[in-house]
Amino acid sequence: MIHDSDAQSLTKAIAHVVEAVEETLAAVLPTADGEGPEATLFKAMRYATLGGGKRLRPFLVVATAALFDVPEEVSLRVGAAVELIHSYSLVHDDLPCMDDDQVRRGKPSCHVKFGVPTAVLAGDAMVPLAFEILCDPKTHPDAAIRGELVARLAHAAGSGGMVGGQMIDLAAEKLDFNIGEVTRLERLKTGALIEFCCEAGGILGRADSKELRTLGAFAHDLGLAFQIADDLLDVEGEAQRVGKAVGKDAARGKATFVTILGPAKARGQARLLADQAAQHLEPFGPGARLLREVAHYVVARTQ
Amino acid sequence: MIHDSDAQSLTKAIAHVVEAVEETLAAVLPTADGEGPEATLFKAMRYATLGGGKRLRPFLVVATAALFDVPEEVSLRVGAAVELIHSYSLVHDDLPCMDDDQVRRGKPSCHVKFGVPTAVLAGDAMVPLAFEILCDPKTHPDAAIRGELVARLAHAAGSGGMVGGQMIDLAAEKLDFNIGEVTRLERLKTGALIEFCCEAGGILGRADSKELRTLGAFAHDLGLAFQIADDLLDVEGEAQRVGKAVGKDAARGKATFVTILGPAKARGQARLLADQAAQHLEPFGPGARLLREVAHYVVARTQ
Repeated sequence: MIHDSDAQSLTKAIAHVVEAVEETLAAVLPTADGEGPEATLFKAMRYATLGGGKRLRPFLVVATAALFDVPEEVSLRVGAAVELIHSYSLVHDDLPCMDDDQVRRGKPSCHVKFGVPTAVLAGDAMVPLAFEILCDPKTHPDAAIRGELVARLAHAAGSGGMVGGQMIDLAAEKLDFNIGEVTRLERLKTGALIEFCCEAGGILGRADSKELRTLGAFAHDLGLAFQIADDLLDVEGEAQRVGKAVGKDAARGKATFVTILGPAKARGQARLLADQAAQHLEPFGPGARLLREVAHYVVARTQ
Repeated sequence: MIHDSDAQSLTKAIAHVVEAVEETLAAVLPTADGEGPEATLFKAMRYATLGGGKRLRPFLVVATAALFDVPEEVSLRVGAAVELIHSYSLVHDDLPCMDDDQVRRGKPSCHVKFGVPTAVLAGDAMVPLAFEILCDPKTHPDAAIRGELVARLAHAAGSGGMVGGQMIDLAAEKLDFNIGEVTRLERLKTGALIEFCCEAGGILGRADSKELRTLGAFAHDLGLAFQIADDLLDVEGEAQRVGKAVGKDAARGKATFVTILGPAKARGQARLLADQAAQHLEPFGPGARLLREVAHYVVARTQ
């Protein structure tokens, strides 16, 4: 369990979730034994999901669920489901017909390794798997809670959430976006899934509607802070450390928080949002220390 | 309601479901008002789903649910969910990096009309929408039944079902498949979803395990009969009538029931399977007339 009472550092808590969610994902993904055509699909699904990624989303599920003393084997399954959705979105985003990225999580993109058709299908297969995990009684004994998780993840991952944001992102190169429009883009593209993660912890723990609103407000500010930090890394980071191509936004002429505000002001804004995110959690008292720390961590990160 | 007591013809019953599921789909799909970037996504989703298709899958859900007196507004929602999954699979299948098909359901493919990136995202957005519909209390008041539907559709649409079958299909051009391997390919690629449709009707109606097995056996034989008819249409059909390109299997050197058995034997096998499918339904008595008829209908169809 990641708990304040353990007095462990955030870095240790994150490392623990990285390892634990890797185990959970390895167990729920189909195993690539045999040499038939499906074995290649299973391998591509595992390649795109395992052995990489910051696992911020699973961490948020586990850490918010810990506020309500939800057992970690439960929150890790929900974290694995959301990581499958996140990873599939990267596989499709990296395709030649989309962003055409060759490197992801410090290794060749899924389509570079397995070919484009297999990468399309691997991404396609990861989405139903996420919902299969959520509605498995192993995730929660109460069918109503499982259903609530399915409904919220489906909404966050769909045209009113992540994919809607990706659609706006496609157009962002051509349109002259202002700060409000960029904020809306990012709220959908990355914010919706981050919001799901934080609310999922509360739903697993039968949080009341006020607590869910608090977690939602935290997630909202955290998500934007995270995105500004991502935009800064695209400008200032090194590809090797970041694990993906950098300098892409400028090359595409894409409006981001950084291109609109400039790096200094953007950094200030990210810090402000991180402070604000942390403040939202006051009602949860000292038990929310790790979540408060993670808000500052996402702004300070270098990868 | 489609019921034997109505003494209506199969053609009329299908036409009724085609119209009713169109209405249901039009209501659950996001509306494309406004001219923002998401409006294009919503338009592409509607284009790929509405105004075409035989709607065999929704018909099977509605007709099997009618055996258990499930209200049609319930079974139509499940039929709409499965049609979204089917339609998304066609959008991704038609992409230039997959089958590269220009025509679908008698009109330009989604990527021809909206461009490849939008088509990828439209397909991606249709999948979570299907699960969102299933876990909505409007679909069924019992959360356990909604969860069962999500679990089964997720499995049927994933790497152990439809997408797994598509992966085998990609390899079918290169491998020298025998009849057993082709059967397994088709059971996954089209059979899994058809099986879901028939079992979903039973689940909505709280069928016992024996009834579910009967519906599963019917779906199994119906799915193969349907696929053989599809292969025959690829050889013998006219593109305009079929609404998609024909002669593709031979051009790709792909093993199908028809290339292995020859057209005459394949047709005989399809009829045999249709008879067998119909026989499975005997325990349901005269109330299953439409389902028995649909088994023969899928074999005799010309589009």
